[in-house]
Amino acid sequence: MKKTINLMPLLVLVLLAALVIVSSMLVQQKAGDAFAQNTAKAGKHSTDNDRHYQWRMVTSWPKKFPGLGMAPEYFAEAVRRMSNGRLDIQVHGAGEIVPALGVFDAVSLGSVEMGHSAAYYWKGKIPAAQFFTAIPFGLNAQEMNAWLYYGGGLELWREVYEPYNLVPFPGGNTGVQMGGWFNREINSVADLQNLKMRIPGFGGEVLNRLGGTAVNIPGGEIFTALQTGVIDATEWVGPYNDLTFGLHQAAQYYYYPGWHEAGPTLEFTVNKKAWNSLPKDLQAIVEIAARATNQNMLDEYTARNNAALIELKEKHGVSVRAFPKDVLRELKKVSQQVLKEQVQSDAISKKVYENWSVFRKNVEQYHDVSEKAYYNAR
Amino acid sequence: MKKTINLMPLLVLVLLAALVIVSSMLVQQKAGDAFAQNTAKAGKHSTDNDRHYQWRMVTSWPKKFPGLGMAPEYFAEAVRRMSNGRLDIQVHGAGEIVPALGVFDAVSLGSVEMGHSAAYYWKGKIPAAQFFTAIPFGLNAQEMNAWLYYGGGLELWREVYEPYNLVPFPGGNTGVQMGGWFNREINSVADLQNLKMRIPGFGGEVLNRLGGTAVNIPGGEIFTALQTGVIDATEWVGPYNDLTFGLHQAAQYYYYPGWHEAGPTLEFTVNKKAWNSLPKDLQAIVEIAARATNQNMLDEYTARNNAALIELKEKHGVSVRAFPKDVLRELKKVSQQVLKEQVQSDAISKKVYENWSVFRKNVEQYHDVSEKAYYNAR
Repeated sequence: MKKTINLMPLLVLVLLAALVIVSSMLVQQKAGDAFAQNTAKAGKHSTDNDRHYQWRMVTSWPKKFPGLGMAPEYFAEAVRRMSNGRLDIQVHGAGEIVPALGVFDAVSLGSVEMGHSAAYYWKGKIPAAQFFTAIPFGLNAQEMNAWLYYGGGLELWREVYEPYNLVPFPGGNTGVQMGGWFNREINSVADLQNLKMRIPGFGGEVLNRLGGTAVNIPGGEIFTALQTGVIDATEWVGPYNDLTFGLHQAAQYYYYPGWHEAGPTLEFTVNKKAWNSLPKDLQAIVEIAARATNQNMLDEYTARNNAALIELKEKHGVSVRAFPKDVLRELKKVSQQVLKEQVQSDAISKKVYENWSVFRKNVEQYHDVSEKAYYNAR
Repeated sequence: MKKTINLMPLLVLVLLAALVIVSSMLVQQKAGDAFAQNTAKAGKHSTDNDRHYQWRMVTSWPKKFPGLGMAPEYFAEAVRRMSNGRLDIQVHGAGEIVPALGVFDAVSLGSVEMGHSAAYYWKGKIPAAQFFTAIPFGLNAQEMNAWLYYGGGLELWREVYEPYNLVPFPGGNTGVQMGGWFNREINSVADLQNLKMRIPGFGGEVLNRLGGTAVNIPGGEIFTALQTGVIDATEWVGPYNDLTFGLHQAAQYYYYPGWHEAGPTLEFTVNKKAWNSLPKDLQAIVEIAARATNQNMLDEYTARNNAALIELKEKHGVSVRAFPKDVLRELKKVSQQVLKEQVQSDAISKKVYENWSVFRKNVEQYHDVSEKAYYNAR
């Protein structure tokens, strides 16, 4: 019993010691826990950053259409690679989710997060939008980019799109296009009389004032219309896209330059709510990827138009002709009239026009002694 | 005593119970720990992705020099924003770590991770390098980009830089430069006789063959040399940079176009070991940021040259003059001779030349009916 009693305090001591040790382990563990919580906090932060965004982009072009349709693919791939897949943008061709000309509304309403199209398609709703794509006798690609990024153009574009919950980014450029395919020679302004030409928008309005008849038919119907004589002429893009369409099989004369589209700029639009949902780094990735796409598309067109023109001339014997100078002079005069009329009735168009026309005048002076002078010297 | 004995087992029981409870808490904690470890593992994975890379970029320009020195700043900021600070690149002006022309070697040897400079500075070591910046009567900015990205140019550039452990990226373009500032009129080829002109590299060699004397003096010494008559003429960049240098106060005549530099492309170089150390997403960020920078610098120059030219003409009464046609013709003829001679002795130069000259011939044909025709029509 004494032994028992002697053992009991020892047992108590052992148990107490064990309790102290285990408790202290638990306290250490708690401290570790606090550290773990901090780590988890950092982890949670980086989990926010690792959040996956699955977006849809609708476009105005058939999926992977040469040039135009490759720009959104390049963009989505660049975003995917740079974000390590955190922002995954699925590109949809025209008609897959919305029709070609439903892009603006779909992104504006937030049905999809992004679109790739051209601002001048929306001129019926927003007359000022056409300045952000192309104006006849306006800026070429190099000048458009300078105006948009260093001349105030992009700020104006954002202002114009603000009421539609859209954040715009320049998203590609074809460079100077061709004047178009004609089934009759254009030797003077008189030859534009009764010319039935597929030429949409502003350029079409100019043709109408010079006695022609502008019609607007979708890209896919151009070839047949031209071949069957429903139209006498059509503009499309340039050698690369025109060759794919086979337009050289439907018309004899290929005229230049594309006075109506000297540097047409495409657009990425992002729904504002979707934009605001992105963390800052993904916003930067979208912005810079759009910038790179804007250059990449021009590079692709420059290289491929070049190769396609050779094929058209050498393999298909296409007759490439310049518009006569007096025809160009008249087209320019009428273009300027139409432009002035259009901006009178719309305050924001007038505001954009004033900024744009000063930039155009000045950059033209500079390019007269640089790019233009060099082209003529070499 | 009995009481004591009675209490002792109770105490033991209490202590045992306490030990069980505390131990079980510890076990739970361990389980939590295992979870924490898994989280930490995921955390560690994302810690690899969150690894911070601190890089240094040396450049050939004074820190934040207008245009040239702003391109690396734009690039570093784009990378920082897109990577959420994971890749932080400190930009150093010329002379801070290595001299202006020490960039290539510093990056090649891995003393620093990146450089921003111009490939033609290394032509003494690598004759083929000049194709990646500018060749007299060569490609303009739009054509250079098309050649580099869609004409095989960038692949060749990588091949040329491979033995030096360098990964190159196009990193900016000034557009067509000006012909330069002259203190005598250039009315014929005879006026180039004994002309002492600051014009480095290939252009200088062409001038020498036409009876002039090319000298190469650093940018910072040009103004004084021109003002004191040590030289009769100088080329520099274009209105934006030339105005900053005050060159209009040292010479009367401002000639165009810059036949010797029609679309000079700058370069980013990345040390190959540093490049390979980056995870794929940061590699993509560097690549796309360089692409955006390449466009951004051209946009900036286009807009600012335009504004500076107006100031030079209207505020400073500068006489802006075109080189006579026969002078340009002669400069072109000699340029082509010099180029052919230079590539004969170097196999890789010859290889690049063959690719480049086919592209140049073809793209010139295409731009004759597009960009050039448009400049002349509007």
